[in-house]
Amino acid sequence: MRHTCIATYRCYDDKADFQKKALSIAVGLTVGSWTELPEAKKAEMEKHLGQVVQVTEYSASAPGERYADIQIAYPDINFSRDIPALLVTVFGKLSMDGKIKLLDLDFSENFLSAFPGPQFGMKGIREILGIQERPLLMSIFKSVIGHDLDALREQFYQQALGGVDLIKDDEILFENPLTPIEKRVTVCMEAASQAEQHTGKKLLYAVNLTGPTSKLASQARKAIDAGANALLFNVLAYGYDVLHELSSDPTINVPIAAHPAMAGAFYPSPHYGIAAPLLLGKLMRLAGADLALFPSPYGSVVMPKEENMGIKDALLRDLPPIRTSFPVPSAGIHPGLVPLILRDFGQDVVVNAGGGVHGHPQGAAAGGRAFNQAIDATLQGVSLQDYATTHPELKSAIDIWGVKS
Amino acid sequence: MRHTCIATYRCYDDKADFQKKALSIAVGLTVGSWTELPEAKKAEMEKHLGQVVQVTEYSASAPGERYADIQIAYPDINFSRDIPALLVTVFGKLSMDGKIKLLDLDFSENFLSAFPGPQFGMKGIREILGIQERPLLMSIFKSVIGHDLDALREQFYQQALGGVDLIKDDEILFENPLTPIEKRVTVCMEAASQAEQHTGKKLLYAVNLTGPTSKLASQARKAIDAGANALLFNVLAYGYDVLHELSSDPTINVPIAAHPAMAGAFYPSPHYGIAAPLLLGKLMRLAGADLALFPSPYGSVVMPKEENMGIKDALLRDLPPIRTSFPVPSAGIHPGLVPLILRDFGQDVVVNAGGGVHGHPQGAAAGGRAFNQAIDATLQGVSLQDYATTHPELKSAIDIWGVKS
Repeated sequence: MRHTCIATYRCYDDKADFQKKALSIAVGLTVGSWTELPEAKKAEMEKHLGQVVQVTEYSASAPGERYADIQIAYPDINFSRDIPALLVTVFGKLSMDGKIKLLDLDFSENFLSAFPGPQFGMKGIREILGIQERPLLMSIFKSVIGHDLDALREQFYQQALGGVDLIKDDEILFENPLTPIEKRVTVCMEAASQAEQHTGKKLLYAVNLTGPTSKLASQARKAIDAGANALLFNVLAYGYDVLHELSSDPTINVPIAAHPAMAGAFYPSPHYGIAAPLLLGKLMRLAGADLALFPSPYGSVVMPKEENMGIKDALLRDLPPIRTSFPVPSAGIHPGLVPLILRDFGQDVVVNAGGGVHGHPQGAAAGGRAFNQAIDATLQGVSLQDYATTHPELKSAIDIWGVKS
Repeated sequence: MRHTCIATYRCYDDKADFQKKALSIAVGLTVGSWTELPEAKKAEMEKHLGQVVQVTEYSASAPGERYADIQIAYPDINFSRDIPALLVTVFGKLSMDGKIKLLDLDFSENFLSAFPGPQFGMKGIREILGIQERPLLMSIFKSVIGHDLDALREQFYQQALGGVDLIKDDEILFENPLTPIEKRVTVCMEAASQAEQHTGKKLLYAVNLTGPTSKLASQARKAIDAGANALLFNVLAYGYDVLHELSSDPTINVPIAAHPAMAGAFYPSPHYGIAAPLLLGKLMRLAGADLALFPSPYGSVVMPKEENMGIKDALLRDLPPIRTSFPVPSAGIHPGLVPLILRDFGQDVVVNAGGGVHGHPQGAAAGGRAFNQAIDATLQGVSLQDYATTHPELKSAIDIWGVKS
């Protein structure tokens, strides 16, 4: 059994001796100094010493582009079993030491054992909704700020009528006197029941959990008491540990959707920050996200395809006993993209749309139906164009947005 | 009185119409849509609508280098009075929308009123220590991981004997069975008293506050009960709001030093992230950091000088009723740099050293003395070289590290 967590970095430097750099990281971020220690002390300190696992150098294609991928193993004994401790150990000081990006973390079994992971995960969400072997469909409130409860209720109802499986709050809707969380939940869940009489479908409403850190758990319970059956959370604005504590709390017994707000401050630079598959995939799952949102490679707010696939892999790969998290590629999604999304993600994906639902010429309910029709068509191996001949909502959608393949 | 918080962004795009981009931010991150609203609705929504304050375009010096600085005013009414809400509003989704960096935030009076700021601040720390009009001297534990209480006590004692004003834990020392926080505090504060008999100087020991988020406050009280008179906190690994809650807690009545661990994931890229003066200056102060550490422009882990001066300004500028925070430029500091530090920062600075104290040829106590001699010399307008002729500790230090000017 391995007793270390392994960090992988990409380090850019035109001149550095990367082997030496790796060694200085392994020593500097653990025991501090090594060669000058007396032998007796070395024996005692060895279990705390970081180890260079691998250094792979790449030659420069252009000035400033010489880099190496460096793997360092950090003994578990050096840090407590929480994400802040691990991140501060492997990338606290080091993040400020030149052009260096944290690419990946490989947790030890012991470290992992402190994390129950998602309380529901993909399987649990499928069970709640009673939907196996089909992508889920999520829609997002459109304009929310400044709208009152009646307006939100109507927006919710129209979305629910379209047969979506999940509806999420806008992440910028904070606690406010016009639509406080417990009233918002009450009216929206009423609208959900009303819509269910037409659609026959259950749905999850991920209500935005906001406010002071120490009040989040009680705020979540207030929402749950009012009928909330899911939560939305801006993880990076609060820290992974807060998500970990919320998801580990047995009284907060509903799925949590992790929003990627602020993620662009971390992942897009090739030279700095934290790679998207770790930031929005592995760490979100470890911290307990049942659903993990991230920018899709299809829309306006884009992320390169291979990073998207890296996130997907981090959320879905086998990592017992941690449950898998539902991948939710987001932004710029319209029904004409559904074949592409399902080709890239398979069935274990949440198709998530805002403008692609609300912007439908016949309204949000028709927008939801168009998405469901696109999903049905794709699962049946029928082209959207063909399916649209007998499905007017899908036809309207592809008339304005087209079909991508 | 202004009822908006203003965000300034730097946005890179070779082709964009920056005016249009600014307008789309102002609308998109507030009311969502505007031009298509009926007039009656516009009247009702106007108080929620973001406004473009300014767009300053810069022509490209090279491909990919065309940019604009964009200022958007966000109505206070849209978000709650906490840092996560403000950050998610102004840079949640937007952070993922192309090459864009958050440069600055200008808080409204109303927003600011929710933040008591540093409980002690620079003035309070000077009062505790009884030192006015002189830079303070801080030293950092060297190797800590794997060392037992006796070893830490001895390391602490030697540092204290050098006459330093503050000693801080290494930020990677987490709660551990060998040196648990309350025992570490007990033995180190004993060593502080013992050293005080020789130096006649009080000192603050900033002990590292770590562990699960919800237990930090009780962990802090445990440390304080054991005699801790300051705390060190890895703010960015936990979120600004956690610092805000700790610093607002009247039972946590000791100064808090904010460590910049992880900051390099945010500030160094010109195209992405959050600028250092905001990240490590303004937001740390708002959240209540009594001392704010950041990479100095002098040493191995460097930050450009103008960013350092931006941080200094953010920590020290007039912003009533928020107290000022002590600037602590860190990393690579040796006594020969003291004249430079005091020239750049004036007297309101903490000279902070690790290797420059412990690496002194006559040991850590001599290292502290060398720093104090360098400070005395500089305040008296005497060159370090001259002062060193009658001060052997300073002489040894500048013999190995030299003097920078």
